[in-house]
Amino acid sequence: MAKLLLGKEVNASLIEDLSKRTEALRAKGIVPRLAIIRCGEKPSDLSYEKGAETKAASAGVEIVKFVLPEDVSAEELKATVEKINNDSGIHGCLMFRPLPEQLKPYQEEICSMVAPEKDVDGMTDASAASLLLGRKRGFAPCTAEACMEILRHYDVDLTGSNVTVIGRSQVVGKPVALLLTAANATVTLCHTKTADLVEHAKNADIIISAAGSLGSLTEEFVSTGQVVIDVSMNWDKDKLNAKGGKGAMAGDAVFEAVEPIVGAITPVPGGVGAVTSTMLIKHTVEAAERA
Amino acid sequence: MAKLLLGKEVNASLIEDLSKRTEALRAKGIVPRLAIIRCGEKPSDLSYEKGAETKAASAGVEIVKFVLPEDVSAEELKATVEKINNDSGIHGCLMFRPLPEQLKPYQEEICSMVAPEKDVDGMTDASAASLLLGRKRGFAPCTAEACMEILRHYDVDLTGSNVTVIGRSQVVGKPVALLLTAANATVTLCHTKTADLVEHAKNADIIISAAGSLGSLTEEFVSTGQVVIDVSMNWDKDKLNAKGGKGAMAGDAVFEAVEPIVGAITPVPGGVGAVTSTMLIKHTVEAAERA
Repeated sequence: MAKLLLGKEVNASLIEDLSKRTEALRAKGIVPRLAIIRCGEKPSDLSYEKGAETKAASAGVEIVKFVLPEDVSAEELKATVEKINNDSGIHGCLMFRPLPEQLKPYQEEICSMVAPEKDVDGMTDASAASLLLGRKRGFAPCTAEACMEILRHYDVDLTGSNVTVIGRSQVVGKPVALLLTAANATVTLCHTKTADLVEHAKNADIIISAAGSLGSLTEEFVSTGQVVIDVSMNWDKDKLNAKGGKGAMAGDAVFEAVEPIVGAITPVPGGVGAVTSTMLIKHTVEAAERA
Repeated sequence: MAKLLLGKEVNASLIEDLSKRTEALRAKGIVPRLAIIRCGEKPSDLSYEKGAETKAASAGVEIVKFVLPEDVSAEELKATVEKINNDSGIHGCLMFRPLPEQLKPYQEEICSMVAPEKDVDGMTDASAASLLLGRKRGFAPCTAEACMEILRHYDVDLTGSNVTVIGRSQVVGKPVALLLTAANATVTLCHTKTADLVEHAKNADIIISAAGSLGSLTEEFVSTGQVVIDVSMNWDKDKLNAKGGKGAMAGDAVFEAVEPIVGAITPVPGGVGAVTSTMLIKHTVEAAERA
């Protein structure tokens, strides 16, 4: 039976640490503040926002919401970003993406307007470049950082370990591969064109599955003692939910098949997803400390 | 006996293609121009510059040199970069690095001043971010691109192939890993902390060796039919040089031991190094085409 790597355990320890750090900042007269820009009322945005608010409150971080109508103009959104950039009392800025349809052509431009030092969700060029070049400007995307935080919390040794990352997305696969490489792991980055995924997965010490494909990680892919970080949040229409009905979130792993074989695994929900918004709060505290 | 992957063959084909493209540009009244900023008279800079000048001339690209004294001030160098940025007749800018000692504290700042669209040597944040995010802004570092160009020229199939990259530097290892991933290869990025390098190297279809360590790639690391791209330029004091004396450039591979086993290999010198400055010219032509 595998050890469960639980988001709530990682969060408890993180929030404890962050509370001390925000206390120290407040003692110096600095209140760490996160701006959240939301256009419209998308349920997934609202749900993430609610989670972030709860965690911010426990960690001693203030949230300032900038809620814009769904049909907001590019000019108005840009003005909001400028306002946040120029407010020295705000240390971090999260902007929900994808932006509404009419702003899609401006999304890259607007994202890159956020001041790198406030870019706690890793969406600017400066953050991407820092990830690649190992600089301390901006931040890596929160989901990639959440994977690293879980591995750190459970003392998973990375130096010299072989990690297979499945999925080459810009928000998880590629950034987590770079973070793992910087932490001295040997990373194999797999994707839809990988020829022998079973071999690559089976031979790894750690699997980071970010394929976004329900049930794609079966018992065939895993081996005894491995650590499996299941990043994906897929909708499983047949899975029983908390209310006893059908339909719930599920990862890439066929949990009941993989869990008896591996050494440790993150559940979905309750694993990586639970830690992602905590990383946003952690980054905001770091931004306040850097400033 | 391995097929030799020769820089001069890649260059001949590249220069032919680039000449046609610069002709087409000139027909539209555009003369592709590369600015080279050099501080002082470092022999390695002068040698690279000479190679770039020869290739630029054959490809129909003009070079404008900005030669500054070794004790140049940060202000003067910044003013030179500004001048190049503002000159619409210049499409690419190469600045030799490392900068002289007194400018070291400003190197990152000065590099990042170069306009992304003229950053043909891939040193700005915008270029790094584009590499990670798959955008068409700026350019990847020339040495990483040279590896890709050699693989393209010799029709080495990358989709689904397993590539082991040895070395995680910012100018070769990490960028070439990202370029290969974008080209649908499955990449394992190895480095000094990798535990089982022999296994990773032996099982790959392609090895990119950028360890910068003379004689580090022995027969133990390779297997039949592999393609070996030897990126490193190490000084071998015992190797016979063209003048019959001792002391010459050599790669990571123990050539006489590796060559009989593998399917194809780049010699050093005459392989990747020979193509690097051609990539600078290619990037300049691309920059002129984009503009």
